[in-house]
Amino acid sequence: MCEAAAYILKPDGQEELFLADVDVIEPEGDLLRLVSIFGEQKSIRATIHSLNLINHKVLLVEKGS
Amino acid sequence: MCEAAAYILKPDGQEELFLADVDVIEPEGDLLRLVSIFGEQKSIRATIHSLNLINHKVLLVEKGS
Repeated sequence: MCEAAAYILKPDGQEELFLADVDVIEPEGDLLRLVSIFGEQKSIRATIHSLNLINHKVLLVEKGS
Repeated sequence: MCEAAAYILKPDGQEELFLADVDVIEPEGDLLRLVSIFGEQKSIRATIHSLNLINHKVLLVEKGS
């Protein structure tokens, strides 16, 4: 499977796990909606910063924080 | 492998292939730099719009166009 873990990239460079096993990330109004391969959904006011798909990693950055 | 194809989402909803077999997408100054699993690199003035990892698809939206 090709899901990835989505982390929030903090201003200090730390990475905080937001949702594991992510399949879909898409805009939903002013938010990003993440959906895991298990159907779990979480939304966050953030943008997609970067991807490393071979490492199964997505970094998000929170907006206006 | 878990690479994806990166498409540019056009204002009319069309999707135009930008780079296949993408591993890494990361900011590089005002651009996004994409690197394929074969080492091919392309840059574009865009943001990451959405992901569908099970379908191996990344959508980009050009900035200021």
